Amino acid sequence: MTYTAVELIEIKRDGGTLPDDAIEWLIAAFTKGEVPDYQMTAMSMAILFNGLDVDELATWTSAMLNSGDVLDFSDIPAAKVDKHSTGGVGDKISIPLAPLVAACGVVVPMMSGRSLGHTGGTLDKLESIPGFNTGLDPDRLRSILVDHGLVLYGASETIVPADRKLYALRDATGTVPSIPLITSSIMSKKLAEGLDGLLLDVKTGSGAQMKTLDGSRELAKMMVGVGEAHGVDTVAYITSMEQPLGNEVGNSNEIRESVEVLRGEGPNDVTELTLMFGEVMLELAGVPGGRDRLEEAISSGAALEKLIDVTAAHGGDPAVLTDTSRLEIAPGEGIVRADRSGFVTRCDALTIGLATTRLGAGRERQDDDVDPGVGVTLHAKLGDQIEAGQPLATVRYRHEARWEAQRERLSEAWSIDDDRPEIPALVVERIES
Amino acid sequence: MTYTAVELIEIKRDGGTLPDDAIEWLIAAFTKGEVPDYQMTAMSMAILFNGLDVDELATWTSAMLNSGDVLDFSDIPAAKVDKHSTGGVGDKISIPLAPLVAACGVVVPMMSGRSLGHTGGTLDKLESIPGFNTGLDPDRLRSILVDHGLVLYGASETIVPADRKLYALRDATGTVPSIPLITSSIMSKKLAEGLDGLLLDVKTGSGAQMKTLDGSRELAKMMVGVGEAHGVDTVAYITSMEQPLGNEVGNSNEIRESVEVLRGEGPNDVTELTLMFGEVMLELAGVPGGRDRLEEAISSGAALEKLIDVTAAHGGDPAVLTDTSRLEIAPGEGIVRADRSGFVTRCDALTIGLATTRLGAGRERQDDDVDPGVGVTLHAKLGDQIEAGQPLATVRYRHEARWEAQRERLSEAWSIDDDRPEIPALVVERIES
Repeated sequence: MTYTAVELIEIKRDGGTLPDDAIEWLIAAFTKGEVPDYQMTAMSMAILFNGLDVDELATWTSAMLNSGDVLDFSDIPAAKVDKHSTGGVGDKISIPLAPLVAACGVVVPMMSGRSLGHTGGTLDKLESIPGFNTGLDPDRLRSILVDHGLVLYGASETIVPADRKLYALRDATGTVPSIPLITSSIMSKKLAEGLDGLLLDVKTGSGAQMKTLDGSRELAKMMVGVGEAHGVDTVAYITSMEQPLGNEVGNSNEIRESVEVLRGEGPNDVTELTLMFGEVMLELAGVPGGRDRLEEAISSGAALEKLIDVTAAHGGDPAVLTDTSRLEIAPGEGIVRADRSGFVTRCDALTIGLATTRLGAGRERQDDDVDPGVGVTLHAKLGDQIEAGQPLATVRYRHEARWEAQRERLSEAWSIDDDRPEIPALVVERIES
Repeated sequence: MTYTAVELIEIKRDGGTLPDDAIEWLIAAFTKGEVPDYQMTAMSMAILFNGLDVDELATWTSAMLNSGDVLDFSDIPAAKVDKHSTGGVGDKISIPLAPLVAACGVVVPMMSGRSLGHTGGTLDKLESIPGFNTGLDPDRLRSILVDHGLVLYGASETIVPADRKLYALRDATGTVPSIPLITSSIMSKKLAEGLDGLLLDVKTGSGAQMKTLDGSRELAKMMVGVGEAHGVDTVAYITSMEQPLGNEVGNSNEIRESVEVLRGEGPNDVTELTLMFGEVMLELAGVPGGRDRLEEAISSGAALEKLIDVTAAHGGDPAVLTDTSRLEIAPGEGIVRADRSGFVTRCDALTIGLATTRLGAGRERQDDDVDPGVGVTLHAKLGDQIEAGQPLATVRYRHEARWEAQRERLSEAWSIDDDRPEIPALVVERIES
């Protein structure tokens, strides 16, 4: 069959189902520039309103995956497991988690993203380690993975170019919040790797892409369905993103906290989530030992050593990991203080994420620069009892004007009340097929 | 307020209301090329799904109207009334109607369109009169209107450029069938003229843009609302387009039939609709005399003389109007015959319109040429009793191959049965504010 873009837009606009070969033609033609941006926009908006069914979504995702080079590690014999988070504030879990499970024998080809909007990005955090190169060529990436059982990298220009092009267009046309389009964007990149297992952390709440549990659950189910349809053992967890994860938000800040976790000195929430996800990744890889083995890899120093070795392999300076005070820190210091005594009833992830981005730690637009030394250290989180005047957060900033512009916004991230609040569970539910 | 296109797309996507100044900014920026096609497409698709309310639509239409030059005849003291049809097959009503009411004293600045898809266009029909120029400069148009009380023209490049640009984009992105966007496209052009009254003929059924009565009614109500909001006395009629109007489809063919109507020798349906619409336009203009005055203008020859004079003013050869056998006719002649005896229970406007277009009388794409000499003469319409072998239509064609390709399609436009069918009323309902 031959198709025209208008016919396919009309099918989806009217709630119909796109034929498989039509989807393959559309994605290929869009990637080559034969279908113009305005027609792909019309299709994206029609999908936002009318969705994609399970079969359409699997085909759409495959077509995206096949739009460019595939970095396929399936010839490496060990079980390969990756983890992906839909993004949050202070969500540095990948950074301690990947070396921890790699130290236990799981092979982890970890493809990560960059900061955008109020959320941070693993690649930006890793690049606050001087010299750390996340953009190595495919041969070098493969040899790091073979030698260390772990590689930490970003999608290059030639990997899933359809997603690169479509995401930029969706960002400019109000079509980002389509669950099938989010699913295919994430999964096309993950499924290019030739994985055996995939762990998905779907954030829900204020600081998440999906603000509601229903939306998060729909996204989790859709991603699990696409993973399984591609023969990858896929498990999703829905976890709370009402308040930031851990006490550090920002690039150097989060590397520092990740190292604390690998030293057994991390904050409770980050440590617990890292260990729980570690157990799941061991299971997905068929590696025995469970939580005991993970705790042993921390206490023996093997997990931190794995991060140090892989950092060196990526050209990074490992000295900042043995002495985190050598990480870049912005010179300015500001303090946000409590204006009353009581219990912290709200510590809003979105507000803190936006303020940190605007201080310079993240990107408002895709071509913004990220400042590794800017960050926020939280001293009070949900349920903490505090006194008036006590510090809620310490901010490291580069530009006084930016700090002045964010000071009030940041202080509004906290609510303090007389009654001790209910603390929402960090892990909401597990979804698998 | 300043806006970004993405913010406005998101408002409409989520079912909200666009502020007036936002609509004005968007249309102006799109016309200047500052808002790219892909963002306007996203907005159009969001409007297709979520609509525009009465106030948004009035503002959207004004913003379109103000996007370019305005051919404003409001300084001409007499009451000015125009008529617009949403388009059908064999719908040549404007051609006899305009000179008929002009001969009775109504001033008619008639802005018309071109053939597209299965429907014909008044400008293409007029241009089958040798030399007839519908693209004269504004000063010449004005002087024809002042001298003759009638001018027949098309929107130039500089009139409502936002509509020209947006319509081409909607055509390529599956966003044509949005009732508010259809309304603003039609009304922005009509309201540029400085009218006192406007008669709208909203077609419904097989050969109409709106196939359902509900859709036609919604479009009619929306157009009447926008007309009244702009201070123009607006009346809409919903009329049937299940079968073609009259017996002639094609450019020369329809000029011939229009002249027959002005001679008092036209087919019943075209004559009746012309007289009924004539009465409405006289009322809208406040010109007395009604149907008697219209019939007098036909029997005296004044109406035909008006068409002849205006044709000469537009550079056309009036001789073809006094002797219509001088109109161009394609050399090939084909006959479609009835394959059985009985009553005609279906004479499908869409099928006949598509076949006539593909024979060369219309445009499949906006830059196709139109052949004035190609056309179809119908010999059997709904309810007619016929014998097997009797001709249903005579086709004039230029290219044998095109005729062979359309012969079967055209014959399938008719259904013949034993029982006499119910004939749907030509005029379905009148809508005014």
